[in-house]
Amino acid sequence: MPQINDIRMRGFRDRSSVDEALEAALDGISLLPSEPVPVTGAAGRVLARDVVSTVDVPAFRRSMMDGYAVRAEDTYGATPYNPIPLEVVGTSMPGTVPDDRVTRGHCVTIVTGAPMPDGADAVLMVENTIGSGDRIEATAPVPIGRNVGRVGEDVTVGESILNSGRILLPQDVGILSAIGHDPIKVVRRPIVRIIVSGDELLPPGTSPMGTKIVDSNSPMLAALVDRDGGTPEVVRLRDEEGAMEEALGRPDVDVIVTAGAASVGSEDRVPILVDRLGVLAVHGITMRPSAPTGIGTIGGVRVVILPGNPVSCLAAYDFFAGPVVRSLGGRSPHWPDVSVKRTLERRIVSQIGRTDYARVVVDGDLVDPVAISGSSVLSSVTGASGFVVVPAALEGYPEGSVVTVHCYYGDCDS
Amino acid sequence: MPQINDIRMRGFRDRSSVDEALEAALDGISLLPSEPVPVTGAAGRVLARDVVSTVDVPAFRRSMMDGYAVRAEDTYGATPYNPIPLEVVGTSMPGTVPDDRVTRGHCVTIVTGAPMPDGADAVLMVENTIGSGDRIEATAPVPIGRNVGRVGEDVTVGESILNSGRILLPQDVGILSAIGHDPIKVVRRPIVRIIVSGDELLPPGTSPMGTKIVDSNSPMLAALVDRDGGTPEVVRLRDEEGAMEEALGRPDVDVIVTAGAASVGSEDRVPILVDRLGVLAVHGITMRPSAPTGIGTIGGVRVVILPGNPVSCLAAYDFFAGPVVRSLGGRSPHWPDVSVKRTLERRIVSQIGRTDYARVVVDGDLVDPVAISGSSVLSSVTGASGFVVVPAALEGYPEGSVVTVHCYYGDCDS
Repeated sequence: MPQINDIRMRGFRDRSSVDEALEAALDGISLLPSEPVPVTGAAGRVLARDVVSTVDVPAFRRSMMDGYAVRAEDTYGATPYNPIPLEVVGTSMPGTVPDDRVTRGHCVTIVTGAPMPDGADAVLMVENTIGSGDRIEATAPVPIGRNVGRVGEDVTVGESILNSGRILLPQDVGILSAIGHDPIKVVRRPIVRIIVSGDELLPPGTSPMGTKIVDSNSPMLAALVDRDGGTPEVVRLRDEEGAMEEALGRPDVDVIVTAGAASVGSEDRVPILVDRLGVLAVHGITMRPSAPTGIGTIGGVRVVILPGNPVSCLAAYDFFAGPVVRSLGGRSPHWPDVSVKRTLERRIVSQIGRTDYARVVVDGDLVDPVAISGSSVLSSVTGASGFVVVPAALEGYPEGSVVTVHCYYGDCDS
Repeated sequence: MPQINDIRMRGFRDRSSVDEALEAALDGISLLPSEPVPVTGAAGRVLARDVVSTVDVPAFRRSMMDGYAVRAEDTYGATPYNPIPLEVVGTSMPGTVPDDRVTRGHCVTIVTGAPMPDGADAVLMVENTIGSGDRIEATAPVPIGRNVGRVGEDVTVGESILNSGRILLPQDVGILSAIGHDPIKVVRRPIVRIIVSGDELLPPGTSPMGTKIVDSNSPMLAALVDRDGGTPEVVRLRDEEGAMEEALGRPDVDVIVTAGAASVGSEDRVPILVDRLGVLAVHGITMRPSAPTGIGTIGGVRVVILPGNPVSCLAAYDFFAGPVVRSLGGRSPHWPDVSVKRTLERRIVSQIGRTDYARVVVDGDLVDPVAISGSSVLSSVTGASGFVVVPAALEGYPEGSVVTVHCYYGDCDS
């Protein structure tokens, strides 16, 4: 137990605005290098290079229908009352090279996706024929080119397929696979060390006991980092300066976020340590919750010091750490959540000069602030649909205002 | 190479509407059983049971500030001009049990999150004191309860925390960790066998060659299954009935989707096999693309037969397979995409009696149909922002209509 005399109570240095703090968080942040991944594992990753096709897709003329590959002119004038006979001289199947040539009065059975035989310039749908075997009759004409997919119909050589920065969709990995583009160069995932500290913390998976509480910040932060395309690495420490110094000083990660020990109390060693080991650019932000947030850099690694109270921790992550993780990984620094406009049923009160993170519940076209707003009350964010940001220039929003709600899930519904 | 005489061309049986097909796809589908996962791996999973807390959080009165735990009445009347002296008799740190009792004229140094010592009923902020060491002076009064978090402030014993069916958010795993709820019972992920077949198919990671094409459907479908909370298992086959029969008949998965060989051509064995091995409820849908889609059941496993053309495959997955995968896994059968309303810059033409899946590009408040609409043209979906569904009852949408766009990414922007 430390002695009373050890306790130094300090005040925050000049507080920064939310905008200043975000600027400091993103200052000098640049895209991580690329890494190769197989096309089958590329969905959701961020493309690091523009992709230009080196092949035509398809590389051959193909049938778009099941039917008969014909010379179109052989079918001109065909009707059910004037069927035109055609001799079936072969079959074209997908993946094969047809060895039959279609000459006057001849045709080749063909299925969807199969290559067109030489000499044929159209596919007569099976519905427009009668008979089978080695002799059929056309009952309708087919124009040149009908039901034939041309070379390069989907993709042509030299065509730009997808641009760097694209977050790869399911159909994108489909097209990359089709053009034989493998491996895919994607932006490396940022590795994010999550340091939580406190003698009162028990690890997740245990039960709270006496004055010991179970760490809720590290699983929450790991899920947030994962959402933002980063790879979390959790370090849980006792309140011990040497261990914290070691965890802060190891530069083998891309970002460090700490939770707890962030304020100006005696046990709040993190800002002091960051200041000593590197540069503490920001400490204290004109925001509620999350005022004790800090931003610094140690050995080239951005450090975001988050408050230990879970709601403050969540808000400060979303305001300052999330944009860093996403920017390093090539994603937009902006909030990834969907936002919706809703009408306030009750006013939100705030203070001029302070940005507020107000949790709200959406109900149809209306939105209500959550009554309990303590920064330690995690149930206020599990019960909320999302949050409204009250800018520092406003005293809040009166009842009936239309506000932007950033949704914790979906579009704030369900 | 099969002989011409082997080729039988059949027609679709009665086509089903999109609604009938979706009903058949979801008919009899029930939630999968639950499985336990550690709280640290639970984000994004679907909660299988309502969670009720068995503990209070916090389980003790705690300080919300750095300062001094006091008896409030000892500070009444304190001002900077009339400071009231208090003797500092100890310290309370997080995670410890304070062994000091606060009696009249005494106080205990306390930091945020630390347990309140007996006898103290308020925390005097350090800003409202002068001095340090074993004697300080209060310069302002503090009311009873101020800066003290009560037992159960966040969560109380018996309180309902989260309901079954909830897709767990980062803050949800935080609160579940805090109440010591571990492991978490979540709905098991549906295992989805993706069967692609075709002699023309090369595996992803290779280059197209001659009339051989690289499989684009299996990586696309695997990414879609992953998006929908399922676990994909890819099986790639040659066009060989025995292998297909084996892959369709093994009932060790929750859903089977097949891509290709779905139409009524000679090589389209899948619907025939499903009909033989189980029940083929639907084959042929009044929809464009994706008309050759089928829906059946083999040995209790729902089978969705998707067309091989990649755009048809994507649309048919989204209309019929996605809802099955999501329903089994406890998610909403509805499309997971965000939808936005936009004004059509050019009309979309469709046919009465047929549902159309029209790919579109969003540009600000406007939206344009994608010009190239072939069902084999994957670049038409990688270049689109999303899709518009034209219901069977309409002939399309005229220029200037406001339509709902289902976004492939975000809210169709970026």
